[in-house]
Amino acid sequence: MLPTKGYAAMTAKAQLQPFSFERRDVGPQDVLITISHCGICHSDIHQARNEWGISLFPMVPGHEIVGTIAQVGTAVSTFKIGDRAGVGCFVDSCRTCPACREGLEQYCDAEPLWTYSGQDKTGQITQGGYSTQIVVDAQYVLRIPSELSLPGTAPLLCAGITTYSPLRQWGVGRYHKLAVVGLGGLGHMAVKLAKAMGAEVTVLSTSEKKREDAKRLGAANFAVTSSPLALSRLQGYFDFVLDTVSAPHDYNTYLNLLKTDGTMILVGAPEKPTPVEAFSLIFKRRRLVGSLIGGIKETQQMLDFCAEHQIESDIEVVPIQQVNEAYERVLKGDVRYRFVIDMASLK
Amino acid sequence: MLPTKGYAAMTAKAQLQPFSFERRDVGPQDVLITISHCGICHSDIHQARNEWGISLFPMVPGHEIVGTIAQVGTAVSTFKIGDRAGVGCFVDSCRTCPACREGLEQYCDAEPLWTYSGQDKTGQITQGGYSTQIVVDAQYVLRIPSELSLPGTAPLLCAGITTYSPLRQWGVGRYHKLAVVGLGGLGHMAVKLAKAMGAEVTVLSTSEKKREDAKRLGAANFAVTSSPLALSRLQGYFDFVLDTVSAPHDYNTYLNLLKTDGTMILVGAPEKPTPVEAFSLIFKRRRLVGSLIGGIKETQQMLDFCAEHQIESDIEVVPIQQVNEAYERVLKGDVRYRFVIDMASLK
Repeated sequence: MLPTKGYAAMTAKAQLQPFSFERRDVGPQDVLITISHCGICHSDIHQARNEWGISLFPMVPGHEIVGTIAQVGTAVSTFKIGDRAGVGCFVDSCRTCPACREGLEQYCDAEPLWTYSGQDKTGQITQGGYSTQIVVDAQYVLRIPSELSLPGTAPLLCAGITTYSPLRQWGVGRYHKLAVVGLGGLGHMAVKLAKAMGAEVTVLSTSEKKREDAKRLGAANFAVTSSPLALSRLQGYFDFVLDTVSAPHDYNTYLNLLKTDGTMILVGAPEKPTPVEAFSLIFKRRRLVGSLIGGIKETQQMLDFCAEHQIESDIEVVPIQQVNEAYERVLKGDVRYRFVIDMASLK
Repeated sequence: MLPTKGYAAMTAKAQLQPFSFERRDVGPQDVLITISHCGICHSDIHQARNEWGISLFPMVPGHEIVGTIAQVGTAVSTFKIGDRAGVGCFVDSCRTCPACREGLEQYCDAEPLWTYSGQDKTGQITQGGYSTQIVVDAQYVLRIPSELSLPGTAPLLCAGITTYSPLRQWGVGRYHKLAVVGLGGLGHMAVKLAKAMGAEVTVLSTSEKKREDAKRLGAANFAVTSSPLALSRLQGYFDFVLDTVSAPHDYNTYLNLLKTDGTMILVGAPEKPTPVEAFSLIFKRRRLVGSLIGGIKETQQMLDFCAEHQIESDIEVVPIQQVNEAYERVLKGDVRYRFVIDMASLK
């Protein structure tokens, strides 16, 4: 077993604190990654506080993991020591269900093994990336292209793939008009990615303060969602709406911005069900769809796409000792646009 | 002007009663249809009672119209006197917007001209099929194949096309598992059509009494929606759910019956918004979509498909003097599966 240092929530009420634990030994199919950085995802906070009611403690959060290969299993030929590598939201899956066979491991019938707060075959609770190192089956590890910096890449493993996957699934590109609802960790990635795919992007935000950033990130247009006039001008304008907001909000307002056959994609999940007007869907044959992160193959495609288009996340790097303060700032929306923990601070 | 007899609601509170009015003269592009039968659609009742708040009175309802061509305009070459013809939910549209140019007149940007309770270019209120005759632009008139009876065809013009169109749009066919929610006017057509397209159909109904009918209509399976056990066995089973219910009901129950990438299609519209759990859509990348009747070209395809597969609506024929009683029975769900008015009773 490999002694490992991290930061953990010991209970749902607790602040994160230093925590020592053990990783499994490197098996034939595994690699050991020395973690250089880990992004802070809003879902880390939900999980650390057991807000979805499914958390396992003690919990080392973190599923936007980047670092360097430190050891490779005897059967691994795809990585070598020193390679730059990443790990996203899951570290294994059943590999035999239809979804897994299609490379959609995130929709595994048996549920993927989540990077943290999951339980592996041996009964061990998985622990995430707010830690010095991690042992992962090499098939669930991503290669980080040389064009990308490690800290700017970390958030791509969750925020990046979560927005890239539906944009690709629905073929968003040139001649499409896309609204991105919410300019946070997910939203800012969506703007960069959709712009690079050739779409005309409009940011819809509650905050007028985001206008300049939206333009800088690549949006052609910006509208404040509190302005009925601004929104009424956009009725029937969009081919796609990508909704990144997890706070309660009205879906129908955004559905009505879609043209006939338009698609609204949910990647944020409000805690409570949201009322949907059937007429909003029926009268223009609109679609309300969901999307969850992405599979391993598609995540690699996303990283390669980001390398080609020089896309990284806008980040603020923090030492792990500031993780609890960073959580509070995330909850206030006070981050542009993703915190990334520098794991050197943990040594 | 052409003196015409019908039954009309004079106000939102009134029973339908005999009503005399005038149709426009037959213009160069028009045909005059002597109406033999007209189906009773649930939306006729909503409109006659102004439950959507958009009704124009006096109102002759009816948009499931069949009959025989009695006169043709000088520029019409597609119909001749004596041809059997049908008219559905709309009688004109702008013809220039993207939807109209694609043959999706039902999604016309300017809104199609509804068969009744619409206002035409001259300011005249349109009047529907509970009447002896109707004048319609020939481009908005359907041909009724010789294999089909007139009364059994009338409901195809709304209930038939409303279910046919989304089944075609989403490519439902062999190897697909489809749930039809609700076995009424729309639902019973959905079962027949989807069966003919090759799908395995399961009927989900609140009423155990519908079990035998479901099988007779072509369903392979049946489940009562009040049974949590029956529904839990069907979790993740379906490629498609076609929801025909207009009464308030829980969407999430049915969304969770879909497999990954499954699609739930709404053709019934509850009056109030229905709560949707984002997680139901996100975790299996499911889709909640709407669909509204169909375009003229597709409606003709539907009629031809029905002729080929010997599909008509199950109907109960009533004289127009019983229309108010029929309305009450529709509201109680006491019809298998569509009332059709025999217009000979009006003469």
